[in-house]
Amino acid sequence: MPIKTITYERAKQWSIQVLEKVGVSREFAELTTNALVHANLRGVDTHGLVRLTAYVNRVLGTKSEPIKIDKETSTTCVVDAGYNLGPCGASLGMNIAIQNAKNQGMGISVVKHSNHFGTAEYYSLMAAKQNMVGISMTNASPRIAPWGSVQALIGNNPWSVALPSDEFPIVLDIANTVVANGKIRTCLREGKVLDDGWAMDKDGNPTIDPAEAVVGLLMPIGAYKGVGIAVMVDLLCGALSQGAFSKEVGRIDDGSKPTNASHLFMAIDINKLVPLKDFKNSLSKYIMDFKNVRLKRDVKEVFMPGELEWRTEQERLKNGIPLSIKTINELNEMADRISVEHIMEIQA
Amino acid sequence: MPIKTITYERAKQWSIQVLEKVGVSREFAELTTNALVHANLRGVDTHGLVRLTAYVNRVLGTKSEPIKIDKETSTTCVVDAGYNLGPCGASLGMNIAIQNAKNQGMGISVVKHSNHFGTAEYYSLMAAKQNMVGISMTNASPRIAPWGSVQALIGNNPWSVALPSDEFPIVLDIANTVVANGKIRTCLREGKVLDDGWAMDKDGNPTIDPAEAVVGLLMPIGAYKGVGIAVMVDLLCGALSQGAFSKEVGRIDDGSKPTNASHLFMAIDINKLVPLKDFKNSLSKYIMDFKNVRLKRDVKEVFMPGELEWRTEQERLKNGIPLSIKTINELNEMADRISVEHIMEIQA
Repeated sequence: MPIKTITYERAKQWSIQVLEKVGVSREFAELTTNALVHANLRGVDTHGLVRLTAYVNRVLGTKSEPIKIDKETSTTCVVDAGYNLGPCGASLGMNIAIQNAKNQGMGISVVKHSNHFGTAEYYSLMAAKQNMVGISMTNASPRIAPWGSVQALIGNNPWSVALPSDEFPIVLDIANTVVANGKIRTCLREGKVLDDGWAMDKDGNPTIDPAEAVVGLLMPIGAYKGVGIAVMVDLLCGALSQGAFSKEVGRIDDGSKPTNASHLFMAIDINKLVPLKDFKNSLSKYIMDFKNVRLKRDVKEVFMPGELEWRTEQERLKNGIPLSIKTINELNEMADRISVEHIMEIQA
Repeated sequence: MPIKTITYERAKQWSIQVLEKVGVSREFAELTTNALVHANLRGVDTHGLVRLTAYVNRVLGTKSEPIKIDKETSTTCVVDAGYNLGPCGASLGMNIAIQNAKNQGMGISVVKHSNHFGTAEYYSLMAAKQNMVGISMTNASPRIAPWGSVQALIGNNPWSVALPSDEFPIVLDIANTVVANGKIRTCLREGKVLDDGWAMDKDGNPTIDPAEAVVGLLMPIGAYKGVGIAVMVDLLCGALSQGAFSKEVGRIDDGSKPTNASHLFMAIDINKLVPLKDFKNSLSKYIMDFKNVRLKRDVKEVFMPGELEWRTEQERLKNGIPLSIKTINELNEMADRISVEHIMEIQA
């Protein structure tokens, strides 16, 4: 696939320009851009600029209201995100949790009436950068069936935990199916069979046929265990905020209405429990033990959660973010529609 | 397998008697017994009275010190469990988290220098019974290899989330491998092959041969995802308490030394975020939607996390706890060793 690269700064500046053009405030355009371009920097391109067109469609196709705080105490906060773009209410929620953790040791914020918020790790890392434990999660539109059923009722419901270390932030960011739907679609497009254990057909039977899988169900990690995790994320986000959950959460790619996603954010001030230096020393020791395990034949190295993303971030800050020609063309078409300059010109 | 039943009250009274006989204080004997017999009540018999002999061996084979609080703030607490039986420091940790949540909205306790604490859900349910979100986790001796390696470095590291509802507590309690080691051993004993995806041989290749699997590795749920979850639980418990983690955590069945496990407990007061009644109404709706999904052929019903355990609990409170003749014989042998009455007599 032909690739061009773009600098981090240019990617941000162009995305802000696009969002402001369709009426998003400077502040919200920056918050949203930071979350999107973060994903590109970290190599999670599926959650990066490629989603900007869907975000623009949502802004053009839906109405939003000012974000407001429904209720707060010294540690807890309920944010009504007013159907603005997901990173707006989500960033506020995590910032309040971090502030409460600074004052009180820990903080939790739930956010309702939101939209797709980008990657979960963007928010958990906000806390890790402040030397805190960061936890983030969101619900999403139904993709998982209760175990034993064939009807999707629960979202993939990604969640993330991030910890600060002296080497790099240790961060887990996972959804609760074995593979994402995008991977199934890629196999379908490229005529490949699926691996065992990725998906089920519409009757709940295991399948390696991508055509059966796209109209079937994604396999949760650990079977009923993954279903259980996804249920808990759904309820922690949706019931604890009295926002939407389960079937009430809409699809990312339907720009005609808000996804109405709900999120949850937590921050825990490490220094209130143990000296930060000791905590970080423990993580250094953990990383070293990880690097010294006996490897499987043909494996060169094992990685801590978040290590590869961190390496990609260092590399892309230096050398730029790669975008496929297909993505650039799509973004340029969107730019034409709203009369903004192209992100870059493709030489014929 | 021949089975006898014992009442909940008799099981507790006998277990307390056993623990007091080997020198455990009345308070700690009760705390430990409550955690063990809870597991039997809920049908998790692998974590119930069958473990009492190992607990007794640990008390006889190791030294403990008084439990003390290392550090506390209005929301955070570090407990040094002094190598007492796991449920002692663990129950204190969760009780402090619940008290802090009552006062401040939320609380977190970490516990170090502990031992096997029973089931994770015993503690998360303590919070759910107080109308709070309960979260609990523990690290354990290494069973999982970093993805791509063949050396166990990370425990199975169970964790639990519990939520109060009007119907029954919704509770997830999982370890991070597809199946427990006990299941592999059962297949070996009964001459059965394993399911695909349960285990790897000592070189990290998938295997369905239980003989290869017992000297090999357990498969984490979702491959690298399960590894990542287990790493996070390990560090949240061990690094945040400055207790033991990874290879420093010992085996349950080695009574000659403490396992030195570390735990983490959290409680969140739901009422500080949204009215408890609204939260519970959302859960009722969720349960109803779950019960109305289209089922897979041959499946009669799907269950919310914790629903089956709750049903078992109701049934066993009424009809008693089943114990195998083998377990009863083992417990009676232990009782003979420490000169305590038998749990029950088996008719010849």
